[in-house]
Amino acid sequence: MTTPNEIGTALRIRTLEWIGKADGFLRLLDQTRLPLEETYIDCHDPETVWKAIRALSVRGAPAIGVAAAYGALLGLRSATELEAGHVLLQKTCDYLATSRPTAVNLFWALDRMRAAVRDSSCSSLEALRRRLWDEAQQIEAEDIAMCDAIGQHGAPLMPVEGGVLTHCNAGALATAGAGTALSVLFAAHDQGRGIHVFADETRPLLQGARLTMWELMRHGVPATLICDSMAAQVMKEGRIQAVITGADRIAANGDAANKIGTYGVALLAHAHGIPFYVAAPSSTFDLSLENGSMIPIEERAAEEIMEGFGKRTAPEGAKVYNPAFDVTPAGLITAIITERGVIESPTRDVVTQVLATKK
Amino acid sequence: MTTPNEIGTALRIRTLEWIGKADGFLRLLDQTRLPLEETYIDCHDPETVWKAIRALSVRGAPAIGVAAAYGALLGLRSATELEAGHVLLQKTCDYLATSRPTAVNLFWALDRMRAAVRDSSCSSLEALRRRLWDEAQQIEAEDIAMCDAIGQHGAPLMPVEGGVLTHCNAGALATAGAGTALSVLFAAHDQGRGIHVFADETRPLLQGARLTMWELMRHGVPATLICDSMAAQVMKEGRIQAVITGADRIAANGDAANKIGTYGVALLAHAHGIPFYVAAPSSTFDLSLENGSMIPIEERAAEEIMEGFGKRTAPEGAKVYNPAFDVTPAGLITAIITERGVIESPTRDVVTQVLATKK
Repeated sequence: MTTPNEIGTALRIRTLEWIGKADGFLRLLDQTRLPLEETYIDCHDPETVWKAIRALSVRGAPAIGVAAAYGALLGLRSATELEAGHVLLQKTCDYLATSRPTAVNLFWALDRMRAAVRDSSCSSLEALRRRLWDEAQQIEAEDIAMCDAIGQHGAPLMPVEGGVLTHCNAGALATAGAGTALSVLFAAHDQGRGIHVFADETRPLLQGARLTMWELMRHGVPATLICDSMAAQVMKEGRIQAVITGADRIAANGDAANKIGTYGVALLAHAHGIPFYVAAPSSTFDLSLENGSMIPIEERAAEEIMEGFGKRTAPEGAKVYNPAFDVTPAGLITAIITERGVIESPTRDVVTQVLATKK
Repeated sequence: MTTPNEIGTALRIRTLEWIGKADGFLRLLDQTRLPLEETYIDCHDPETVWKAIRALSVRGAPAIGVAAAYGALLGLRSATELEAGHVLLQKTCDYLATSRPTAVNLFWALDRMRAAVRDSSCSSLEALRRRLWDEAQQIEAEDIAMCDAIGQHGAPLMPVEGGVLTHCNAGALATAGAGTALSVLFAAHDQGRGIHVFADETRPLLQGARLTMWELMRHGVPATLICDSMAAQVMKEGRIQAVITGADRIAANGDAANKIGTYGVALLAHAHGIPFYVAAPSSTFDLSLENGSMIPIEERAAEEIMEGFGKRTAPEGAKVYNPAFDVTPAGLITAIITERGVIESPTRDVVTQVLATKK
């Protein structure tokens, strides 16, 4: 018989994997090809990592952070002496920071990589590489532990028996571990709660249909796929007892940026008296931002909407608006589930208090 | 110089057209191929009409009604004497009524066809055919006039300058005339109002992206395409001053069934203090239903969501829920715009009063 932990390990999805030692390379599961193909992208340079983040081959705020950390290390490959290594690290971090504007974990991870070698205690290029490799591995290990902690904190908030709606993908594919929102659902399911998940397909890029359904089915969690436009109807039919999503950046007051459509789902949950939860690591908080109006919203290419299914679905020359994220005001969030604990009815004070908790 | 009316005629879309006399056939624009191809389906028998309605080659409650009326006439083609003609009419009407369960205009049009020959005053099979052809033509002509009247009643409710959100397609393609919701937008635009339309793409079948954008661009109305999940965000950004949609069936108290997603949009409009309008002919009302909970909701095939555009977008074996309609409670509807006048803050009393208005 296998224990839940062993099952967890056996099912662990290799969203990203560093192959080799300090001079190794980063292997990314190409999420744009899921669920039809399980193919990998081997990144031997920062440019390949940048493109993979930009194209959403690797996506999800925590996974982007880990990929960027390893990407920073890859920037040192062409260095031949210590000084050049330091310069290349700065250049690579600046460069990788331009890949996506909304996920704060990206900047957070790059800052950690810079900070790791700021004291200049490395006496050789090899020591610098080794120090950066250690830091990237540490970020990855923390991410895995963070996912498990979020799962344990969040599971008791899920219904003992009932439906849970999720939007986009905040699963193992969005992290180095078991996920954020999906980690909560996996833990709830493993603990014997009778949850049935409704997954929004999440246009335009269908992360819900392609990725969340794939993960839930793989884990054996009962799940039903719906279009984004059906969320209100399934709520009205009494099928949903809780909503849970991830987040890409959270302001100091608890306003949370996440995949476009999340704000609408939060309003619909509010209208139906359904609790709305956000699951995200503490690294998702950007305490320099007082509220969500200060979070930059990435706007993406029209083609994602016009011909997202390999077939043109709108008239030639149609004008398109494609914001990739929206901000859910803290007032619509029942609680934010972090690895440090649960922030109920988030306000600046509660956020500060919970984030100050020692892990 | 052309007058608005001439422009209207020049731009008129031939959603459906009867070719020939009483023994002619029905030509339908195949809307499943738009906007890439403008192809037509020639219906010489009721089976082809049934399939076209079922497959959404012709869709939109009023257009379904007109197509069904002509379809009933096609049922008489194999008749060789009067009595058989009457029997075939009943059988054909029963059969066509099974094509789609939610649009009440379908049953309404078929009932009119039956009623037109109920007095049995037709003395020959030829007279019966002629009488039914007259009735179908009459239904089509009324539909065209209805669209124009809705446009005139609704235009003054649109912003003088501002954004209007619409969901699905309630345009010329959904009627024999200029449309219902889109007729209001065409009239507002023609009268010089500076409206900018945001069209929800409307998953799963993308009627907004494929059909509404096509009509708006053809008519020269400024329009922007968004995903359904973006409606809340564009409202929050202050870009939307009114929402307008069509309806497939309206209960006596004003509860309105329309394309899945409409109820959610109505809730979002309410949350942002934006007026929400429904435009529909009086034939859309089903006064036998006290409220919307009695409206049957069509559930459609999983494939529409799983591989709607020639490419599988969800894992093999995924469970799917695909309700094609939802019901917006009257309390969320600012006004229902009919050809007989505007029903403000709909209740059973106001509905009865306006519908009793002579055309």
